[in-house]
Amino acid sequence: MSTAKKAIRLCITGSEVMNGFVLDRNTQFFASELYALGYELKESRIIHDDPQQILAAWREFSASGDIIVNSGGLGPTSDDLTVDLLCEWLGDTAIYDAHAEKRTRFFFERRARLQKVSVAIDVALRQARIPSRAHAIKNSVGLAPGIFMPEANFFALPGFPDEIRGMWPETLSLIEALGLKRAQTKILPVWGVGESQLFSGMPELKKVTVGVHALPWGCRLFLRGAADDTEATAEVAALSEVFTSAFPQQIIESPLQAIIAILKTQAKKLALAESCTGGLAAKQVTDLAGVSAVFQGAAVTYANSAKAALADVDAEIIAAHGAVSFECARAMAEGVATRLDADYALSFTGIAGPDGGTREKPVGTVFIGICDRTKSATRVARFSFPFGRERFRNAVVAAGFLALWQMLEGTAGNPPWPLKEFSGV
Amino acid sequence: MSTAKKAIRLCITGSEVMNGFVLDRNTQFFASELYALGYELKESRIIHDDPQQILAAWREFSASGDIIVNSGGLGPTSDDLTVDLLCEWLGDTAIYDAHAEKRTRFFFERRARLQKVSVAIDVALRQARIPSRAHAIKNSVGLAPGIFMPEANFFALPGFPDEIRGMWPETLSLIEALGLKRAQTKILPVWGVGESQLFSGMPELKKVTVGVHALPWGCRLFLRGAADDTEATAEVAALSEVFTSAFPQQIIESPLQAIIAILKTQAKKLALAESCTGGLAAKQVTDLAGVSAVFQGAAVTYANSAKAALADVDAEIIAAHGAVSFECARAMAEGVATRLDADYALSFTGIAGPDGGTREKPVGTVFIGICDRTKSATRVARFSFPFGRERFRNAVVAAGFLALWQMLEGTAGNPPWPLKEFSGV
Repeated sequence: MSTAKKAIRLCITGSEVMNGFVLDRNTQFFASELYALGYELKESRIIHDDPQQILAAWREFSASGDIIVNSGGLGPTSDDLTVDLLCEWLGDTAIYDAHAEKRTRFFFERRARLQKVSVAIDVALRQARIPSRAHAIKNSVGLAPGIFMPEANFFALPGFPDEIRGMWPETLSLIEALGLKRAQTKILPVWGVGESQLFSGMPELKKVTVGVHALPWGCRLFLRGAADDTEATAEVAALSEVFTSAFPQQIIESPLQAIIAILKTQAKKLALAESCTGGLAAKQVTDLAGVSAVFQGAAVTYANSAKAALADVDAEIIAAHGAVSFECARAMAEGVATRLDADYALSFTGIAGPDGGTREKPVGTVFIGICDRTKSATRVARFSFPFGRERFRNAVVAAGFLALWQMLEGTAGNPPWPLKEFSGV
Repeated sequence: MSTAKKAIRLCITGSEVMNGFVLDRNTQFFASELYALGYELKESRIIHDDPQQILAAWREFSASGDIIVNSGGLGPTSDDLTVDLLCEWLGDTAIYDAHAEKRTRFFFERRARLQKVSVAIDVALRQARIPSRAHAIKNSVGLAPGIFMPEANFFALPGFPDEIRGMWPETLSLIEALGLKRAQTKILPVWGVGESQLFSGMPELKKVTVGVHALPWGCRLFLRGAADDTEATAEVAALSEVFTSAFPQQIIESPLQAIIAILKTQAKKLALAESCTGGLAAKQVTDLAGVSAVFQGAAVTYANSAKAALADVDAEIIAAHGAVSFECARAMAEGVATRLDADYALSFTGIAGPDGGTREKPVGTVFIGICDRTKSATRVARFSFPFGRERFRNAVVAAGFLALWQMLEGTAGNPPWPLKEFSGV
């Protein structure tokens, strides 16, 4: 194999992707991860679970001297071809990976016992196989191990995104050991800012390229310069300083994770009251393991009657101001905080669309409340995110977590949104 | 060019995709459209806006005799390379497409007049160009026309999804005229079944291929046979019957959408009580527009105290049986149904992990309750989904919606899971 490893090539195998039933999100996962680390991704080739196509792609990639990352084909069924094709290609034989074999037997024996369903263990064990000369990459989510074949600079990972994520740290450290050149990269996640806003004060660029990825919560900025170029290093640092000064309280990887960490330290509790977001904020909180120490729960109050039943919102408030209002957002936040005995509560009430908008409150209007029971104070801000239902809901939840994080950090300041402050929870 | 056109190959060009900034959704659009019509899509190759890479891909695809659909590179900027590369490849020259030229001039002249911004019209007109021997495909959304080069069985479409959709009917009729064979296809989404379970009673296949896509909610099966083959037609029908008999109440596109439709017809209301799923079920319900007619809300009762505060679960039940129990799932479902005045309620309480498992109730254990207030009855089933946090939560919510749909259809039967029935809500 060539020693001039220049780039990485992806091979995504899966007839379910080629049939259009599954959206391939793995290309973006690999691409963004590799780009952030300064690696070059050359192509992503999506093909069927077809032995000839797969072997042809691997052989072509291998001839280029690049590193190959294959995703898919590691399950127990007959269309899971990766292990057998690897053995055919490199002249190896398949063996059971001891760790994966043990886990697979344990899983199916327990399942047979509990559900009284007998499973053909021989079939199930197919996914515990690896080529004899392979290094097995541990799979903590599913049963099939990942595979690294050092002789071919070849990695095989499953197709399931959560399994890939679980194996990614080990995979990355193996890729790192192969000694590819890495561009200098600095990533700045800037919350609550749109693309056009970002570039108003941008200095002239000499050695660095700036990539912008617009997201529901703001923008992710990628500053990139050549490896081993000290001028590029200096320019990346200077640019980074420009953006950090311009958006001092908005550059953070995850406001939500920061909130959880702060609340854990302070032994404080969080509750949520969600109308238009319909459980999305609670889902994002509970996506994180270990939040039970700080998260009490959420009142998902989609119907107006539920706002009373779960968050003690007075029907008169809705009658007087509407369910989408400063006052209702305040009542939801204070009601759920009190009912769940939480120190802080976020509330969301707005119009996700496509229907329900009015002249005064068009689709995209939302009121976000933060109740701080430690100070008997509630602040409600009015935002407008007229982006369509899905992006609206993600933008709303992101704005809420950003505002709560800024408040907990004592840096909330005065955002450019219409705002009302209330006291006396 | 070869007359044996067997398949279609996609070339997706765009450095923003290769950098991970943009998720490629076009592969799935083309793939699902082509698959539904029985066409064969051979591969989707995602590459940078790099002239050498693009030309190499086109030449390779062309040599195979397949139809090429290229997406991207049709704008006005210098990284929009498609027209120039096509001319280079096929020895043609670029001309203005009369229709596109007129639209582009009109658009920019009006913009200059209205916004008093002068635009370099030469640059803007770059996107109105096509090779002289091309057929232009009208773009009703954007300005750049699509391109069909009959001599190369080559289609060029833009990268923007909405522009592609606008040009798709004309593109499809041009593809159809090329006379590709179209396969017979049958798709079966089988809920609540794992891959290994699926194939235990599978008959021998002669003329049909079966693809399986494993998902958190079950499996999607693809039966496919050759065009104009009556044996394949019979085998697809027979296989379809095998699976339908084996899983009579589990083949459905979306139990959740079916539930919403049934409840709308019956004017009944739904509520949710979520512990381990943490709002995911409510999020999935409210992902759908127009559910406010049937969805009251959800009690996300992560902490035990929240189970009392939002769903009126008696503390003694948790003390006696634990929060993860038949009895607590029952109390959550009945409590939230009563409090939100819903006819049906689903409850979820389990151990998502990674921590919190015990010997009797290991990580992955979950109790799912369905309260049917129209019959004063509650049924709770115990499941085991030891799949890691994210997939666990998706599997739990899917199992709940499947069970509720089966109950509403009157076909719940006796699943192979431990079950308790309660009466008197």
